[in-house]
Amino acid sequence: MQRLLLAAVAALGLASALPAAAQFRNAEAAVKYRQSVMQVQGFHLGRIFAMANGRLPFDAKVVAEDAMVLDTVDKLPFMAFGEGTDKVAASKAKPELWKERAKFDAAALKMQEDVTKLNAAAKTGSQDAIKAAVGTVGQSCKACHDAYQVQ
Amino acid sequence: MQRLLLAAVAALGLASALPAAAQFRNAEAAVKYRQSVMQVQGFHLGRIFAMANGRLPFDAKVVAEDAMVLDTVDKLPFMAFGEGTDKVAASKAKPELWKERAKFDAAALKMQEDVTKLNAAAKTGSQDAIKAAVGTVGQSCKACHDAYQVQ
Repeated sequence: MQRLLLAAVAALGLASALPAAAQFRNAEAAVKYRQSVMQVQGFHLGRIFAMANGRLPFDAKVVAEDAMVLDTVDKLPFMAFGEGTDKVAASKAKPELWKERAKFDAAALKMQEDVTKLNAAAKTGSQDAIKAAVGTVGQSCKACHDAYQVQ
Repeated sequence: MQRLLLAAVAALGLASALPAAAQFRNAEAAVKYRQSVMQVQGFHLGRIFAMANGRLPFDAKVVAEDAMVLDTVDKLPFMAFGEGTDKVAASKAKPELWKERAKFDAAALKMQEDVTKLNAAAKTGSQDAIKAAVGTVGQSCKACHDAYQVQ
């Protein structure tokens, strides 16, 4: 139908025999997708940190919304780490990610569990609980970025 | 604490007197954020379209996940359309967006309502219901892009 929809559909690899979850048009599209997800995560995580630590006025409602967003969005990037996507110029993924895929996947799962706990903490509205929970999430993020992202 | 977290926090305008919901570091960061959200939306919407129309094998579980993601992510971009962000080189927003802000906001709300209906349709697993609902979402997307995005 319209150009907009064609553009959206064009982002998918429609003739591919890959599993549906991995159907990006090409490696560049996968990298752009996962970096977009990381941008979104970075904003919301950053705002929770800033509010938990008093660098922004604490607003329990905003923190709860941010945590809910993270608890959805944190599931998304990992389907976009297909083999060979580290060859894309814009990619910052280290080859170790694929050599240690099971370890990477376990680290992703740990982060997601930590975000689920952050989401629960955010619902209580307790700044102290949020501060502790977001600190744990930050450590999970950092561990994986240190290991698998070119710094 | 760590560099990663500092980078995340640096994405926010910590000294700003703006409402918390609008606290981007600068107009460039707001544009990058909203374009990242649009990228994510484009992938998931495109996959639903492709499955609804049979260009990808229909997988009700994948469609339901995509619709759930959209129903969260579609709330995000609009806080990033602050006044003046059309002056950023990467922005494709037309000045009309701010001249007709109430109309733009109403169009955003209409799209969000359509996505909520798509989410409900996706939960039924009916390909026909999904096809109809995603068509309506596509029309909402297109109306707003036609009016407020440089083509």
